[in-house]
Amino acid sequence: MQTYAHAPQLNESYVNYVWETLPRHVRPTLLLPSPTLSAQLGCEITIASETFQHTGSFKFRAAYNLLASVPQQHIVAASSGNFGQAVAYACRLLGKTCMVVMPNTSAQVKVVAVQSYGGQVDLIDVRAISRAERVQQLLKEHPDAFAAPAYDDYRVVAGNSTLGKDILSTHNFDVIVVPVGGGGLSSGLIIARDHLQASTEIVGAEPLPGNDAARSLRSGQLIRNEHEPATIADGARTLSLGQLNWEILRQGIRDIIEVPDETTVEALRRYFIYANLKVEPTGALALGAVISQPERFRDKRICCVVSGGNVDPAVYAQVLVEA
Amino acid sequence: MQTYAHAPQLNESYVNYVWETLPRHVRPTLLLPSPTLSAQLGCEITIASETFQHTGSFKFRAAYNLLASVPQQHIVAASSGNFGQAVAYACRLLGKTCMVVMPNTSAQVKVVAVQSYGGQVDLIDVRAISRAERVQQLLKEHPDAFAAPAYDDYRVVAGNSTLGKDILSTHNFDVIVVPVGGGGLSSGLIIARDHLQASTEIVGAEPLPGNDAARSLRSGQLIRNEHEPATIADGARTLSLGQLNWEILRQGIRDIIEVPDETTVEALRRYFIYANLKVEPTGALALGAVISQPERFRDKRICCVVSGGNVDPAVYAQVLVEA
Repeated sequence: MQTYAHAPQLNESYVNYVWETLPRHVRPTLLLPSPTLSAQLGCEITIASETFQHTGSFKFRAAYNLLASVPQQHIVAASSGNFGQAVAYACRLLGKTCMVVMPNTSAQVKVVAVQSYGGQVDLIDVRAISRAERVQQLLKEHPDAFAAPAYDDYRVVAGNSTLGKDILSTHNFDVIVVPVGGGGLSSGLIIARDHLQASTEIVGAEPLPGNDAARSLRSGQLIRNEHEPATIADGARTLSLGQLNWEILRQGIRDIIEVPDETTVEALRRYFIYANLKVEPTGALALGAVISQPERFRDKRICCVVSGGNVDPAVYAQVLVEA
Repeated sequence: MQTYAHAPQLNESYVNYVWETLPRHVRPTLLLPSPTLSAQLGCEITIASETFQHTGSFKFRAAYNLLASVPQQHIVAASSGNFGQAVAYACRLLGKTCMVVMPNTSAQVKVVAVQSYGGQVDLIDVRAISRAERVQQLLKEHPDAFAAPAYDDYRVVAGNSTLGKDILSTHNFDVIVVPVGGGGLSSGLIIARDHLQASTEIVGAEPLPGNDAARSLRSGQLIRNEHEPATIADGARTLSLGQLNWEILRQGIRDIIEVPDETTVEALRRYFIYANLKVEPTGALALGAVISQPERFRDKRICCVVSGGNVDPAVYAQVLVEA
């Protein structure tokens, strides 16, 4: 495993520690081989679904690992939804309180879920103020609080690496395809792969309408979107990769495939029809990448990571029937 | 374990044999504790989901166990869909051929699925001819074929009992709630419970519009519907329990709760929103039973069996938004 300038703490022994301590608090990922999707796409597809993880997405891995390790009792987080739910539930389990900054365009079901876990929701207009700015405002009001980063933190990356452990320690894959937003999950998988000294390729799947990570990889430097991108994949409406995530991805990711929203929707429908799996749009990105470039994955053993399943019923119903 | 007049073969050693041989061909059920549904309903709910079983429902357990044990190469089956898919896929795995009789009102996705597994579909108008009659016609045309019963057979019941093994050997439940159509699954769970000498109550959940099993239990004798009942739970549109299933249920089932279709739909939506689980209407019956009688289940450890997940996208989308 390499060392990283942005996080010297992210070393072998810390990853070992997290792999020993975190799994008892999280659910193992659900690995589902799909003969039907495999036949359709000419490769061997196994789904790694985090839709049944606590709070319905992989984010709980990061949130619990992070918040169990900080002394502060009050937590502030910015999130398009899944990280907020994860923080709220982790706080409840750990006896902490939290406030979650969310765009007022977030899926209603995600807002209600944060509240149901006991989290306080702070809705903002992202055209008027960025989430990061609002968090700074709140920290001034609550100087004793801890601002929980959603992806740019070694404890977050190490928490997410336990998903890589689940995937890589049971199956032998040629490629793992993973949604990319801020890079927290993809960098976690790279850390897991390198920690296990495996040779599995990690390929990112990013919404084409918010392709800052793909552009960063092409240009060799971290590129930011001017505004939060308008994509149906609401979990990937990030301005850019985190600094640590970028440092890990630029060395460890094979490639990033840009997935048009209509292909993401097609993948969501295929999960529903052929795998009985309810996924949120962001969670469908990896299969969308395989659908958009089948020749690239032909005859390979592919793991498609489904990052989460939380989506408004009305949004889902609409996406399901618009063919 | 008791002995049954309708199936002397259904004894300890046969169940042992099936439990030793079948599990390597089927997927273990997915057991999902749901803190959110538990909090809502005032009991401790664990979902046992067969939606990720091969062909998307528990029926594969029965179909494989049955068809692996008969010498015939050609199989005929009558099915509202899930048993047909299961028979078709089991036949493919076993190198057999099959013809599946289905009502022309079956979910389109189920018809296509049978065909995709290599099964031949025979659509009938159930107002003109019953499924059983059509099977008899086909057997006259193909005297070398085996007619696969969907529930009234000891090999079917024993195959389904492996779901009870999955549930009962890992958790300690007060009650297992299970959808009832022909009684194949519920009788399988009773056999498993009795085989393990457990004291867990088995409670049935039947669509109110097709409540022949509940009426049978009340009257003490097997009652048949005049026509296939019109319920949204298409997997439970059976005329009556099977003879063997009735013999097992009348002695081993605690009770049968009659679930109105609107409560089944409410349960389907709750699975979607609070458990990220796509279930078919029939699969939602058990949770529907708990929703309709929460006081009865209060503070108990409940296992809600989700029998399957196969449902047309258009039907599902409609059900999801009609609140």
